[in-house]
Amino acid sequence: MNDTIYFDYAATTPLHPDVRDAMLPYLNDEFGNPSATYALAQAAQEAIDSARATVADLLGCSPNEVIFTSGGTESINAAIKGVAFAQQLARAGNQITTSAIEHHAVLHSCQYLEKFGFEITHLPVGQDGLVQMSSISSALNEDTVLVSIMTANNEVGVIQPMAELSRAIRERASHLNRQIPFHTDAVQGANALSVNVDALGVDALSLSAHKFGGPKGAGVLYLRRGTPFLSQQSGGGQERQRRAGTENVAGIVGTAMALEIAQSSRQNYSAECQELRDALLSGIMAAIPDATLNGDAERRLPNNVNVSFSGSDARIMLELLDEAGIAASAGSACNEETLEPSHVLLAMDVPLSRAVGTLRFSISRRTTQSDIDRLLEVLPGVVDKSRLAAATPAS
Amino acid sequence: MNDTIYFDYAATTPLHPDVRDAMLPYLNDEFGNPSATYALAQAAQEAIDSARATVADLLGCSPNEVIFTSGGTESINAAIKGVAFAQQLARAGNQITTSAIEHHAVLHSCQYLEKFGFEITHLPVGQDGLVQMSSISSALNEDTVLVSIMTANNEVGVIQPMAELSRAIRERASHLNRQIPFHTDAVQGANALSVNVDALGVDALSLSAHKFGGPKGAGVLYLRRGTPFLSQQSGGGQERQRRAGTENVAGIVGTAMALEIAQSSRQNYSAECQELRDALLSGIMAAIPDATLNGDAERRLPNNVNVSFSGSDARIMLELLDEAGIAASAGSACNEETLEPSHVLLAMDVPLSRAVGTLRFSISRRTTQSDIDRLLEVLPGVVDKSRLAAATPAS
Repeated sequence: MNDTIYFDYAATTPLHPDVRDAMLPYLNDEFGNPSATYALAQAAQEAIDSARATVADLLGCSPNEVIFTSGGTESINAAIKGVAFAQQLARAGNQITTSAIEHHAVLHSCQYLEKFGFEITHLPVGQDGLVQMSSISSALNEDTVLVSIMTANNEVGVIQPMAELSRAIRERASHLNRQIPFHTDAVQGANALSVNVDALGVDALSLSAHKFGGPKGAGVLYLRRGTPFLSQQSGGGQERQRRAGTENVAGIVGTAMALEIAQSSRQNYSAECQELRDALLSGIMAAIPDATLNGDAERRLPNNVNVSFSGSDARIMLELLDEAGIAASAGSACNEETLEPSHVLLAMDVPLSRAVGTLRFSISRRTTQSDIDRLLEVLPGVVDKSRLAAATPAS
Repeated sequence: MNDTIYFDYAATTPLHPDVRDAMLPYLNDEFGNPSATYALAQAAQEAIDSARATVADLLGCSPNEVIFTSGGTESINAAIKGVAFAQQLARAGNQITTSAIEHHAVLHSCQYLEKFGFEITHLPVGQDGLVQMSSISSALNEDTVLVSIMTANNEVGVIQPMAELSRAIRERASHLNRQIPFHTDAVQGANALSVNVDALGVDALSLSAHKFGGPKGAGVLYLRRGTPFLSQQSGGGQERQRRAGTENVAGIVGTAMALEIAQSSRQNYSAECQELRDALLSGIMAAIPDATLNGDAERRLPNNVNVSFSGSDARIMLELLDEAGIAASAGSACNEETLEPSHVLLAMDVPLSRAVGTLRFSISRRTTQSDIDRLLEVLPGVVDKSRLAAATPAS
């Protein structure tokens, strides 16, 4: 598989070799159950404590505010359901505000809560993919128990103005004289953006390790002290009663080290990716002049190119690219099987005929100019073939 | 840590070396996101498909009935909350029957559901730790939506008569003319007992990989086709909409191989463990004649010795054993930090003074006669010292 030219780093990243090496002892002799009391178990407990301190330092929070989970989806579910149910049970309200372009982990958690009497408001976004700031004040009301807005979009890479959004939410909450916790799905972007929770202005934040060089099956939930929360995984007392279950020690150790590497190199990562990304984007635009970039050109992740080729079909293009040894995506790995047009693009007013012909290329520092050259060599023919197939009625 | 004499295999087991080797490719080059469509991703998807087929074969079910999770606690939470909420939303009832000696993952999931209007009935057990069969018929009523009884107890190792329980539940359900799904926490015992779901007579079954030589952070939920279920982790379409989130590919591959090894060697495992276990138990009884074995002497896991030393203190004994390089447990790793007397022993009518002086020794095929000799050399002094300390008022 080493010869695949990989343009899908937003879907998942390879495990960083140093991270893997740090995990291996916990897949070998250091197998103790951290909840036990003897020396073997305490070694595992100390590894978790150290990982928690590292993550807390990177988030700018207290170690007690860090919860290790099985991934970004679990973190998001725990944040949204855990905060919402805690407030509903305290009769604090039943309204949740989120955006129209969230990942399905957020949107479907909200749909789940609708079954239990919650009402969901979806903030609109502009054609640039940015949440319309003016919509916040009217969306939040005396029943609002939670706001959830993603830091950066997984499909189009648009980065929301988190500090501004946080200020607007806090002002409105203060006006309503209520506590309105603000959660962000920060699963995308930890390679490029700060995850400092005070700078972002959030009360809860979700991370997925495999998006930044860590292992699959591991994630982080930050939960600010004092945030109402009902644990969504009941059982033993692990994670200070907020997430029961024997800890995935290797996964936790790997998560912390991967986040440390990602956060300490994010300036270099951003600069290098941006240069490659710009070369890719201008190459595409030169070769296929009617291609259109989706999402704001400036306020986006440095590794994301999301382009539409009107009149083409993403599935056909992905197949043809795969045959050429190139791995790309139609926008979100999690949607690939359902083959539905992207709710993100539709919310951004992208016409359906363009939405279904959209590809996402996401890169990393491992991407080379020769990878990009190869993609640019293949892509025009792929788009042409797809347009031809789409224009020809099936026999 | 290799020189620890380990008597806590019920808390966690070392990763089987073959399992680790099978996992490593997915921590190296095979890092694709299974939800994507290209070749790299399909390799990951095929690994998951193959793991699912292996597990289904061992459980005697269809691959579609196997859900991979992040561990035993998640499986149990998903089964109990997922089945209960699905039925509550369908207005089918709000009563759950479980036993008094379940793991906290079950008991606290039920407590969680009490906040949402569920009523919980705890079936009593005898002094032998066996669920009282006669209690089933009166416990189940026209509001019952779920029964959850563990296959084997994590503290005392007592094995419930699953097929008999299943028959009694099905008879009562048929009498009430309703569907009453039967879930079992089978987290303990997959090394020694069959996990065939039809033989057990269950509709849902939870497993934890790290209890049988697999990785931490991975588990299985079996869910019989037609069982009402509301997915507890919302998001992408993974696991046929029943458990969202990017799959922990390495963990899933490891889980399947570990279960295959455990199930294919369970006869040898049982025979070898039982011989060692009997040597340990008779050694303890010879050295400390007033020790008492908790739980039925025959219907118990072959690797479990749970003994009380009246007038002693488990915490002191565990410390002294740890100083001697021996790792044991007071009953449940998940309870160690809370220092509460075991709810299992109290439900079995063990007096408090014996319950607080209880140790669990759990072994495996890796346990040697020399490990047992060393424990038997140390234990009498440990019990004496603890009794002395407990009898001496603190100065």
